[in-house]
Amino acid sequence: MILVLKQDITREHIDALCETLESRYKVKTNPIYGKEQTIVGLVGDTSRVPEEEISNFDSVERVVKVQEPFKRANRKFHPDNTVLNVNGVEIGGQKVVLCAGPCAVENQQMITEIAAGVKEAGAVLLRGGAFKPRTSPYAFQGLRAEGLHYLKEARDCTGLPIVSEITNPSQIDLFMEYVDIIQVGARNMQNFELLKELGRHKRPILLKRGFSNSINELLMSAEYIMSEGNPNVILCERGIRTFETATRNTLDLSAIPVLKAKTHLPVFVDPSHASGFASYVEPLALAAIAVGADGLEIEVHNCPKCALSDGPQQLLPEQFAGLVKKARAVAESIGRSL
Amino acid sequence: MILVLKQDITREHIDALCETLESRYKVKTNPIYGKEQTIVGLVGDTSRVPEEEISNFDSVERVVKVQEPFKRANRKFHPDNTVLNVNGVEIGGQKVVLCAGPCAVENQQMITEIAAGVKEAGAVLLRGGAFKPRTSPYAFQGLRAEGLHYLKEARDCTGLPIVSEITNPSQIDLFMEYVDIIQVGARNMQNFELLKELGRHKRPILLKRGFSNSINELLMSAEYIMSEGNPNVILCERGIRTFETATRNTLDLSAIPVLKAKTHLPVFVDPSHASGFASYVEPLALAAIAVGADGLEIEVHNCPKCALSDGPQQLLPEQFAGLVKKARAVAESIGRSL
Amino acid sequence: MILVLKQDITREHIDALCETLESRYKVKTNPIYGKEQTIVGLVGDTSRVPEEEISNFDSVERVVKVQEPFKRANRKFHPDNTVLNVNGVEIGGQKVVLCAGPCAVENQQMITEIAAGVKEAGAVLLRGGAFKPRTSPYAFQGLRAEGLHYLKEARDCTGLPIVSEITNPSQIDLFMEYVDIIQVGARNMQNFELLKELGRHKRPILLKRGFSNSINELLMSAEYIMSEGNPNVILCERGIRTFETATRNTLDLSAIPVLKAKTHLPVFVDPSHASGFASYVEPLALAAIAVGADGLEIEVHNCPKCALSDGPQQLLPEQFAGLVKKARAVAESIGRSL
Amino acid sequence: MILVLKQDITREHIDALCETLESRYKVKTNPIYGKEQTIVGLVGDTSRVPEEEISNFDSVERVVKVQEPFKRANRKFHPDNTVLNVNGVEIGGQKVVLCAGPCAVENQQMITEIAAGVKEAGAVLLRGGAFKPRTSPYAFQGLRAEGLHYLKEARDCTGLPIVSEITNPSQIDLFMEYVDIIQVGARNMQNFELLKELGRHKRPILLKRGFSNSINELLMSAEYIMSEGNPNVILCERGIRTFETATRNTLDLSAIPVLKAKTHLPVFVDPSHASGFASYVEPLALAAIAVGADGLEIEVHNCPKCALSDGPQQLLPEQFAGLVKKARAVAESIGRSL
Repeated sequence: MILVLKQDITREHIDALCETLESRYKVKTNPIYGKEQTIVGLVGDTSRVPEEEISNFDSVERVVKVQEPFKRANRKFHPDNTVLNVNGVEIGGQKVVLCAGPCAVENQQMITEIAAGVKEAGAVLLRGGAFKPRTSPYAFQGLRAEGLHYLKEARDCTGLPIVSEITNPSQIDLFMEYVDIIQVGARNMQNFELLKELGRHKRPILLKRGFSNSINELLMSAEYIMSEGNPNVILCERGIRTFETATRNTLDLSAIPVLKAKTHLPVFVDPSHASGFASYVEPLALAAIAVGADGLEIEVHNCPKCALSDGPQQLLPEQFAGLVKKARAVAESIGRSL
Repeated sequence: MILVLKQDITREHIDALCETLESRYKVKTNPIYGKEQTIVGLVGDTSRVPEEEISNFDSVERVVKVQEPFKRANRKFHPDNTVLNVNGVEIGGQKVVLCAGPCAVENQQMITEIAAGVKEAGAVLLRGGAFKPRTSPYAFQGLRAEGLHYLKEARDCTGLPIVSEITNPSQIDLFMEYVDIIQVGARNMQNFELLKELGRHKRPILLKRGFSNSINELLMSAEYIMSEGNPNVILCERGIRTFETATRNTLDLSAIPVLKAKTHLPVFVDPSHASGFASYVEPLALAAIAVGADGLEIEVHNCPKCALSDGPQQLLPEQFAGLVKKARAVAESIGRSL
Repeated sequence: MILVLKQDITREHIDALCETLESRYKVKTNPIYGKEQTIVGLVGDTSRVPEEEISNFDSVERVVKVQEPFKRANRKFHPDNTVLNVNGVEIGGQKVVLCAGPCAVENQQMITEIAAGVKEAGAVLLRGGAFKPRTSPYAFQGLRAEGLHYLKEARDCTGLPIVSEITNPSQIDLFMEYVDIIQVGARNMQNFELLKELGRHKRPILLKRGFSNSINELLMSAEYIMSEGNPNVILCERGIRTFETATRNTLDLSAIPVLKAKTHLPVFVDPSHASGFASYVEPLALAAIAVGADGLEIEVHNCPKCALSDGPQQLLPEQFAGLVKKARAVAESIGRSL
Repeated sequence: MILVLKQDITREHIDALCETLESRYKVKTNPIYGKEQTIVGLVGDTSRVPEEEISNFDSVERVVKVQEPFKRANRKFHPDNTVLNVNGVEIGGQKVVLCAGPCAVENQQMITEIAAGVKEAGAVLLRGGAFKPRTSPYAFQGLRAEGLHYLKEARDCTGLPIVSEITNPSQIDLFMEYVDIIQVGARNMQNFELLKELGRHKRPILLKRGFSNSINELLMSAEYIMSEGNPNVILCERGIRTFETATRNTLDLSAIPVLKAKTHLPVFVDPSHASGFASYVEPLALAAIAVGADGLEIEVHNCPKCALSDGPQQLLPEQFAGLVKKARAVAESIGRSL
């Protein structure tokens, strides 16, 4: 941690500041007296030095952090990739993982049919929303507990582990009973009460990046879950909000190599929510594999036209099967497989 | 609602589409046959026509909504300003309302002292965080229930109604007991489970705009609360996330006249969180009044240097008193008062 | 074009408006009388109806455009891909084109060496900046005319056609003499005086997207060049400005399938400027090919450490050669070649 | 300037690095050996140490700049406000300056009429576009030299100094003859060739912030003009591009106090372009004065409905007169005048 001091600070002030810092936070200080500006380097365990408090001192112009604020998710302290095993599906390893299914579970028949379809095409995880966070209170809000029940039946038929989104800490018992990977949606990425609760169990969490959250904030939210004791976190890029309106969000594929450098956690990409249009899903899915994603989450519906939510971005099972074929070729071209 | 059809659609397809729309959604259709493109206008109660479903039809290129998706918050259906009365404090009327207090309640003495200070300076509402959503799990998380208790004592001493932030639907009974205006923070603006729960009571809600949410999304979140039966919503602009890093967020003051045109609800501005620096709070507070805000939420601390959170942006009580003096002059220059 | 009228407009006003529109702009009007709102569809050649003028009429709430404002760049009117031939290099065809070279030409020896290196590795176009637009007036501004001269010598040695950036309409004679593809940089994408001048020649233009310009604005800038008579335009995505700071810009790879759907022009991607870090260039280059780019522009320097500009993002020739090998595999996996 | 070194660097490498830095750049180095990371502070004249080159060294993880990269525009080296005198109009002093006029000069009569109207209402500068940069090549491009001639006649009638936008370095002689304050539009803020040319004269420049440029970039563009010898620069905030679409751009009023702290140059605000709607211009103009702007640039047209460009955002002269009355009251409430 480095303190940049204000320009007009006297030598006496600097000495007093250093004394305070050393005694209060048990760190060593190293002032560097510049012609126009003096800086003070702090050495030792600075993870507990409160940046905000320090930046408030009269003599301090600003504080520069040298180390990253996340520990458990940091690749520096855990160089090897984290590989999860969910009912036999390896996540974060050599294989690229395909997770597919409808935006929302609408009834038992549709989810069972879609599950069979995406399994045959090559998916190894089944997604489906039971609790739906919707911008409008007048839109379809999901089948809730009933939807989880249908998902479980689809798993019984196909063997595919289930991914579904939680929206309230009060739902946690239900999710522990039914769901193999609990998804935290973009809008809840900084619902810290929910993250802390999920950290108290070991169930794998698929943590989606908020559409306006930085990569560092995503890692800090993973840190919330991990610091409570749950190391099983999968990150997911799903598009960020920018000025561009031709796609629903701007898929930030640069985030994948950045995340792979900063953290050991597996990283997924969701091209369906990012683009908002079915016709862009396939090229973005291929790009996601080429850029290094460990998995894809793709929306598939047996009748997108009659879907109760997010119709325009969902693929038909046969379109998904076509995508898988191309995805396999791209994965192999970079030395991975599906 | 207007449907723009694809270019190569035949007359027969158009007729069939219109028939389907009329029978399924009980609306009247009006096709306009253009040289290059045909459009179909829908007339009647289109609020229940599912846009996503329609936009998925083979022959439809895109759907243009003519009416706004929010009803209860809409000024068109409620031309007069909503004016709330919270323990004698009128919100949304001729007077500009000042709400002040620390970012977080840290102990009993500090909140009582600050409450007395801001009241003397001219504040009519007391703010203070008990449950703190923080980006880092290692940062101070608030005194929680104990903090609400201290706030209540500060209200007993000063008579100032209390504003405090809720972060989990499970806290609602506690908040109903202690808090006069329940704040929903920026990160929870689309925590729809929380909004629905808050809609089931009549306690006034101060709903802060998410730092990456549009004005329309803010109104839709107000609609969530109002559609459950609680009409007592105050909106609050607190800065949006942009590429600019000189301030913590970019305070979107244009949003105030836009909101005043679209909705009858009172609109506040929080210049403290938006700027992140105490020295910018006063000019932005004056601008907020000049642009038409009904109230300000300002962070005041008796020792910003020792604050456990958000120190750099908090004002000293005497700085706040100076701000109030200038704010009064600006309010009077536009025909309002404090 | 559709006009949404204000709510309180009388039938007489609507009739008068329609008469005015029909006589002034020679279009046919089709009013649709809704319960709450009336809309008027305009049929005929609406490309000359001034949207701004119309939206200013008292009775008009807003104008909705049904057709896209670009014509010559529009795939609707030119379904086949445009394929350019630049000194034997086909751009926009089956092959993915690699353009490589240093950010700036620094002296004759370096550009000749790099040209030989990138050619051997697989590049078919040579890039190099002679006129450098830099944020700081104190930074290296390029060798200017001397730099173009060195580029020409490098072309004489290697046969690689040259790509270099123009920054002022006054340089055009110089560029016509020396440069095979004239690059318009991101900061000049809306320098309309420059675009019009470039439209008056037939020399191919590589038009880079401004870091804060929408896809539609990029197409409108292409339209500027094309409407003056030059159809030889190549578009290039190079990252947009967002709130994320982990990379210099956010590479918008979704823009590639969007552009390929909207226009027949070739589309390149520049992963070097977008990311700002050499280590992210390779994965983003592979993703760009997978998502459908027709070419890549990549910065290569024989000593990035001593580069006078943009050092951190430039690859060594041997790193570039490694990238080409992987790029070839990805291109083949999607049915293209290098 | 501070260098954060990579984690695994040996003491020998650090010593070698410091030697290189000291001999090559004539600065003093101060290494601070931390437990996990070592940093090196550079002391002396670091303005000529090339950040990019340094950040490219093998042992360097990143470079942190302590000092701002702009000198001539920096308030630290020029604490007093710059006050310009343009034909008797003081800019940057105690009075808030009003500049008004149409988006584009359309003919002689209209500009003379509007000039008389805005002067009577209280404007002291006349704006009017002769060279118009437009997104579409099919839109009205301005009367060019003829427009400047009409502006000059309007100045002869009213005595109001003229503000008009330049779009090409080749127009400079024309502008030196006709225009009192040369405006550089948002799209040309980083047209460095144009800035350098303008720096070679002493004519005052009104430099508008690019809609996607940071405050620091705006100051660097001012530095371009000033470093060539022209100290007469006025900055102007006119809205930045964000995800919000309810207004054309998001007016960044926080930029005003930030700029006033960082630079001694006068700062204007243009609420017309920022909002894009006439009804939002007045509240934003009042807020701009309250937040500390030294001047306003406001579009006024005698018939916005028939305007050839930007009609929806232009005020009628009588609306402008109403605005001026309120603006005067707000200016006086903060101790300034019009």
